[in-house]
Amino acid sequence: MSGILVINGPNLDILGKREEKIYGNVTIDEINVELKEIASAGGKEIEFYQSNHEGDIVEKITHSEAGGILINPAAYTHTSVAIRDALSARGLPAIEIHLSNIYAREEFRHKSLIAPVVTGQVSGLGKRGYSLALEALMELVDEK
Amino acid sequence: MSGILVINGPNLDILGKREEKIYGNVTIDEINVELKEIASAGGKEIEFYQSNHEGDIVEKITHSEAGGILINPAAYTHTSVAIRDALSARGLPAIEIHLSNIYAREEFRHKSLIAPVVTGQVSGLGKRGYSLALEALMELVDEK
Amino acid sequence: MSGILVINGPNLDILGKREEKIYGNVTIDEINVELKEIASAGGKEIEFYQSNHEGDIVEKITHSEAGGILINPAAYTHTSVAIRDALSARGLPAIEIHLSNIYAREEFRHKSLIAPVVTGQVSGLGKRGYSLALEALMELVDEK
Amino acid sequence: MSGILVINGPNLDILGKREEKIYGNVTIDEINVELKEIASAGGKEIEFYQSNHEGDIVEKITHSEAGGILINPAAYTHTSVAIRDALSARGLPAIEIHLSNIYAREEFRHKSLIAPVVTGQVSGLGKRGYSLALEALMELVDEK
Amino acid sequence: MSGILVINGPNLDILGKREEKIYGNVTIDEINVELKEIASAGGKEIEFYQSNHEGDIVEKITHSEAGGILINPAAYTHTSVAIRDALSARGLPAIEIHLSNIYAREEFRHKSLIAPVVTGQVSGLGKRGYSLALEALMELVDEK
Amino acid sequence: MSGILVINGPNLDILGKREEKIYGNVTIDEINVELKEIASAGGKEIEFYQSNHEGDIVEKITHSEAGGILINPAAYTHTSVAIRDALSARGLPAIEIHLSNIYAREEFRHKSLIAPVVTGQVSGLGKRGYSLALEALMELVDEK
Amino acid sequence: MSGILVINGPNLDILGKREEKIYGNVTIDEINVELKEIASAGGKEIEFYQSNHEGDIVEKITHSEAGGILINPAAYTHTSVAIRDALSARGLPAIEIHLSNIYAREEFRHKSLIAPVVTGQVSGLGKRGYSLALEALMELVDEK
Amino acid sequence: MSGILVINGPNLDILGKREEKIYGNVTIDEINVELKEIASAGGKEIEFYQSNHEGDIVEKITHSEAGGILINPAAYTHTSVAIRDALSARGLPAIEIHLSNIYAREEFRHKSLIAPVVTGQVSGLGKRGYSLALEALMELVDEK
Amino acid sequence: MSGILVINGPNLDILGKREEKIYGNVTIDEINVELKEIASAGGKEIEFYQSNHEGDIVEKITHSEAGGILINPAAYTHTSVAIRDALSARGLPAIEIHLSNIYAREEFRHKSLIAPVVTGQVSGLGKRGYSLALEALMELVDEK
Amino acid sequence: MSGILVINGPNLDILGKREEKIYGNVTIDEINVELKEIASAGGKEIEFYQSNHEGDIVEKITHSEAGGILINPAAYTHTSVAIRDALSARGLPAIEIHLSNIYAREEFRHKSLIAPVVTGQVSGLGKRGYSLALEALMELVDEK
Amino acid sequence: MSGILVINGPNLDILGKREEKIYGNVTIDEINVELKEIASAGGKEIEFYQSNHEGDIVEKITHSEAGGILINPAAYTHTSVAIRDALSARGLPAIEIHLSNIYAREEFRHKSLIAPVVTGQVSGLGKRGYSLALEALMELVDEK
Amino acid sequence: MSGILVINGPNLDILGKREEKIYGNVTIDEINVELKEIASAGGKEIEFYQSNHEGDIVEKITHSEAGGILINPAAYTHTSVAIRDALSARGLPAIEIHLSNIYAREEFRHKSLIAPVVTGQVSGLGKRGYSLALEALMELVDEK
Repeated sequence: MSGILVINGPNLDILGKREEKIYGNVTIDEINVELKEIASAGGKEIEFYQSNHEGDIVEKITHSEAGGILINPAAYTHTSVAIRDALSARGLPAIEIHLSNIYAREEFRHKSLIAPVVTGQVSGLGKRGYSLALEALMELVDEK
Repeated sequence: MSGILVINGPNLDILGKREEKIYGNVTIDEINVELKEIASAGGKEIEFYQSNHEGDIVEKITHSEAGGILINPAAYTHTSVAIRDALSARGLPAIEIHLSNIYAREEFRHKSLIAPVVTGQVSGLGKRGYSLALEALMELVDEK
Repeated sequence: MSGILVINGPNLDILGKREEKIYGNVTIDEINVELKEIASAGGKEIEFYQSNHEGDIVEKITHSEAGGILINPAAYTHTSVAIRDALSARGLPAIEIHLSNIYAREEFRHKSLIAPVVTGQVSGLGKRGYSLALEALMELVDEK
Repeated sequence: MSGILVINGPNLDILGKREEKIYGNVTIDEINVELKEIASAGGKEIEFYQSNHEGDIVEKITHSEAGGILINPAAYTHTSVAIRDALSARGLPAIEIHLSNIYAREEFRHKSLIAPVVTGQVSGLGKRGYSLALEALMELVDEK
Repeated sequence: MSGILVINGPNLDILGKREEKIYGNVTIDEINVELKEIASAGGKEIEFYQSNHEGDIVEKITHSEAGGILINPAAYTHTSVAIRDALSARGLPAIEIHLSNIYAREEFRHKSLIAPVVTGQVSGLGKRGYSLALEALMELVDEK
Repeated sequence: MSGILVINGPNLDILGKREEKIYGNVTIDEINVELKEIASAGGKEIEFYQSNHEGDIVEKITHSEAGGILINPAAYTHTSVAIRDALSARGLPAIEIHLSNIYAREEFRHKSLIAPVVTGQVSGLGKRGYSLALEALMELVDEK
Repeated sequence: MSGILVINGPNLDILGKREEKIYGNVTIDEINVELKEIASAGGKEIEFYQSNHEGDIVEKITHSEAGGILINPAAYTHTSVAIRDALSARGLPAIEIHLSNIYAREEFRHKSLIAPVVTGQVSGLGKRGYSLALEALMELVDEK
Repeated sequence: MSGILVINGPNLDILGKREEKIYGNVTIDEINVELKEIASAGGKEIEFYQSNHEGDIVEKITHSEAGGILINPAAYTHTSVAIRDALSARGLPAIEIHLSNIYAREEFRHKSLIAPVVTGQVSGLGKRGYSLALEALMELVDEK
Repeated sequence: MSGILVINGPNLDILGKREEKIYGNVTIDEINVELKEIASAGGKEIEFYQSNHEGDIVEKITHSEAGGILINPAAYTHTSVAIRDALSARGLPAIEIHLSNIYAREEFRHKSLIAPVVTGQVSGLGKRGYSLALEALMELVDEK
Repeated sequence: MSGILVINGPNLDILGKREEKIYGNVTIDEINVELKEIASAGGKEIEFYQSNHEGDIVEKITHSEAGGILINPAAYTHTSVAIRDALSARGLPAIEIHLSNIYAREEFRHKSLIAPVVTGQVSGLGKRGYSLALEALMELVDEK
Repeated sequence: MSGILVINGPNLDILGKREEKIYGNVTIDEINVELKEIASAGGKEIEFYQSNHEGDIVEKITHSEAGGILINPAAYTHTSVAIRDALSARGLPAIEIHLSNIYAREEFRHKSLIAPVVTGQVSGLGKRGYSLALEALMELVDEK
Repeated sequence: MSGILVINGPNLDILGKREEKIYGNVTIDEINVELKEIASAGGKEIEFYQSNHEGDIVEKITHSEAGGILINPAAYTHTSVAIRDALSARGLPAIEIHLSNIYAREEFRHKSLIAPVVTGQVSGLGKRGYSLALEALMELVDEK
């Protein structure tokens, strides 16, 4: 139970291919390569999951054997009580990650339904936010 | 058209397995056994459906041959206009059920998008709420 | 301390005599007859109380020897902190009941001051809602 | 069923005796004398009722044999769903009357819970508002 | 300076010709005939003015020689600060009149910008509201 | 009663002459030429009216002999209850048209007082929105 | 006119008997004994009144011969315009008292309808708050 | 890249089969036949897609080879940031279409999360709204 | 294109003649005399315009040959999107002026629809505010 | 650790010298003399501190050796999370004191950021409020 | 008591050195030179004060011997009740000045806590706003 | 210009000494030791600054020679426009850091005035959040 599950929500499959002004031109695959190295260095298994489906993300959280969750809920950050409930039910160490600074964008992106049930949140640090959050998460998993 | 459809929404597949402080330790399967007995006693067919997917629940409502719907929309209670519209389009007798008292929890759980289009709502009575709601629903179906 | 107190709030003395479109034509007396039978079958004493006076309802709750309370606070659902405080002070199992679906009526009826301090709420199931709520309440009293 | 019921709510028993700057120095008795004359001239029976008790006003509305109601709900204008429900249940012609202009006073007095269920409202015309409202009410009762 | 000015705002020129379900089938001309009789009986001159133009109503209020104003601002009730300011600047006795009960209609019609600066308001009493308001206004003018 | 009335509200007389970044450089005259052709092709008379005056637009709506109304209320979209009431009183098929996407502009432009009383709304399609709305309107008039 | 009236609102008759975690275990009678001593020491008559009825409290305020009022409106703090109006009509020195810190409890308890019309408010100091408020009130009465 | 993608959201598969009072009795298939003819006449390929699943609609938008999108997001209009983000990421000409006038329905339907990121919106024109929107969209695609 | 247009909105024609407590007793004519002198001294042509009609002010703004606008929109400050749009379309240097301190008056006067589209605003400085604003405006015109 | 710290916030150094209508003409020095006597009588050391600087007040709270804090945060009552956090971190018995009745003043003064973290609040009792609060505080310190 | 105090709030010490797009490249020193000349010409002493500390500004206002205050509260405009209270306590003629048009910037900058207690406000006129406000202030001081 | 400035706001000087349940028992000094090591390893100079004074933090930001800022504004996160303006004026890479998860605490802590003007935000990761944020910040400074 000490592995890491990385979840990327809706539209992140096209990261780096569109709207580069907001999100930069890095792709999820490139981020994952980096995360895999960090996990390996830390002796942790890591699984990557991307989905555009709220229900699939709920089920991934429910059935995962991981010991910690790194999640970029993307659009579902602001609309999904179901993902919130799934995270809350698991009660694992979890970090919410956003590439862009959600507090510098549209008003409706300032409110996260997910934040109150995770351990912490990293926002606006781009690709490196993933790496740093993973490092923090691995420590949190070990401490538990 | 006099059967009953029982729908359980997201995260209810893990009922009784996690967060027992809020929801108790009964499982959906145990509830269903009890509901099946009540339906049998009343001479009604009954179908059980659980899904974490908003779209699947919409379609289940649309395509069901049942005469009445007992639904615990769980997290979708507060976020799904689609399920509301599906219930409203069917126009069947329907009862919304919640295991916990949603009015004694977080503010955002006090508002149900589903309540205005169903016949009634039962909240906070735990497992027995299902049984009672089913009894009421069978009567409603018969009266129609 | 295992008897049941049934409280009906303001304007329920004229139930079944006016505004039948919303509330149906059943009277409180007819409901009470049915409730008495259920209580008898369950071996429970039951007392019926109707009042249009907030203060009287507060005092009934305070001084009752019952082990559980079934209450339709009617208009006071939305305006009485005093009844809420009385119920909260007693700490008995209690179920809030509404004949009509309060969530399908005027906006101001969607907010109950009572709901957060009772065990559960049944709304929109008409006369049968009372019977079902009583059955649930008797179980709650026995479990205590 | 063609008589008139005049209801004055809380604190109107001391009208003319206190806070003359807002309400003038006329008393309820003096208003009633004038209303009695108008009713007599119109061949209508008239009954006067003042109470500081929400429940009593509810019951007066419920049990009255009058054909029309002239009501100054005073403080209950802004807080009583019970009186609103009682008026709505009776469905009689009814006029809400206020001595002072409630729209030129504190913000919370701008919202009447009663207004949506009565025939009309007269506000700010002092004692003469009662007389005029009574004349209108007598016509409404006759037309019915 | 003891004459009366009667102002009818936008769309009241077609009163009685359209939307009879809300406003009845009386016309402004018929109302005016009745008002003229009341004014004559009271020895008061009376002038009738209808306009669909906010600016024209402002100027009518400003330049009138009347001693009191009876105004149905219609749609401008809810949007015109200019008419409010004009009435406030004149400081004459004034009564705001509405044929229908504005508090039983759309939410945006519940808020009057005019009410806080007039003597009083009559709402929901149909044609007779005009007559009664005129009688009250004539007394207010005489008292001044 | 089968002709079409085209109403353009405030500041549309200068369309195409200023703020081209938002509205493009087409003029109302050019749009009207196109609309006239469509009407002719459909065998419909068409009248064009532009005004910066709320009251004038109210009166145009009231006195027009047209069978359908195509209206760009411009700034009055968000502030005129009077135009809303005039459209509602006429009860003709009517389409509200906006050149720009009002939902992508300032917050206060997202709320239309007109939309709830017209048949439909077309927004953001520029000049061609007028043509399409006219075609729809002619069908609506014929169906009536 | 220099005596003191002490009013305790709804549910304070059971103070010290229930919900000790919030209110402690002192009873109203014990508080009153202490207040009586303070009043005696100060040469003031003192009258104690507890009621669960809004209307009764209104009338007590109206008919009392006291020169100052010490009032714990309890639940009516947040819902009673009638008690506010009664206090405002009397215009006596008055202090609003709460045993618990109402600003550290549920959101709806943060707003007092009574506070704006009394001299001052004491909240959260338990039993001793009564004593201190009485001392202040006696001075206020003497200064008048 | 000049083809058209037509997306119909949740519950539109049952269009014309239920709730005819709001949506009429036309079916999506009938609409599609008409749209196909218009596209053919304009020399455009057209693809039809209906789904009740938010995630599927997101992916359809992402992976489509079309040059323009005609979308009726139905219930997801008001709840889906994910579809908004997908449309925004594609940056194609797009028109949001609603059969009924969403501004004349429940309050929560007045706010579209989709509208700010599409070219324009057509609402309330029934089946013909689709045809007109398609014509506009084909022009938009050609202009690009 | 370097002249100055001075616009005074509704009710300013009676400035100095009514409500002196708020606005002082200076008249618009007196202000204009002073402004004319300042303009002459600065070698600028100046035109004065007062209107109570929203549409007239819109048109004056549209058709003026001036190089800068000094506008006291009075009541239209808070209600006119049309005047805002006209000012925005012209894009001239413009200063909004208020005699009284609008931020020390009724809540609804704290929000200006005009302020976001003009260069600046001067409020509460009485007659001298006009003079100073004119001086600033002349400089702004020259700088352009 | 049984001494008392008295903190007076911004502008209280000029108490009694300005705005006597709201605050009376007593000075902080006079209040302190009285408080010193009460403390002496109770055998408690007392320290007086006044500052207009939020940060200084934070530090005073942090570094004080007192066993209880009597604080009039004045303007910082409504704006300082820092002082709230400092008080909360210390966790000492503390009473918030206001000379005037803050609930009878401007709307923004009705909300205290401090109240939820102190033991209690005394408002509107003028100078004597300080004395009474000190007495209560000394008891609270002794009880601890 | 006829001198002028000029107060510049937080971050104005770096005016002209950063964010030139919003504030221009003039420095406070350059503004002060100009203000000194105007004051000299008017025979007034003038003192300049800049601080980033809320408490210091409060104290400067309190202890100044000036007869009028020209204040740019900058960020404290929107957050400081303490500065508001200090200005209100002094009761001197005072003008609030902003270089940029605060009503054309972020929503939170549209609300000034200072404006209701000063004589007037000048916003958006850049450096020249200071000069004009000073001229007005000198007249206000002389008139007093 | 490549050094790092670490700013800790009010009450962080007592970190680890009080309220350990929320913030843990680490002290700022211990955090700083760790940060110093990271900076050294990265070849960056680092300066530590803690203050409880809003104005001091403003000035530190203004006058610092650092190339990047790591700031925990603590209580000022929610109340300081001045610090926001200072950060915005500097325009340096900056990261906002919170030890606790501010989104799981009181409602008023969910809104950061600082977040919209910094590069990113890290919340809820305790001491390790500082280390990670510093690593990210050093990269941001180097990239610039």
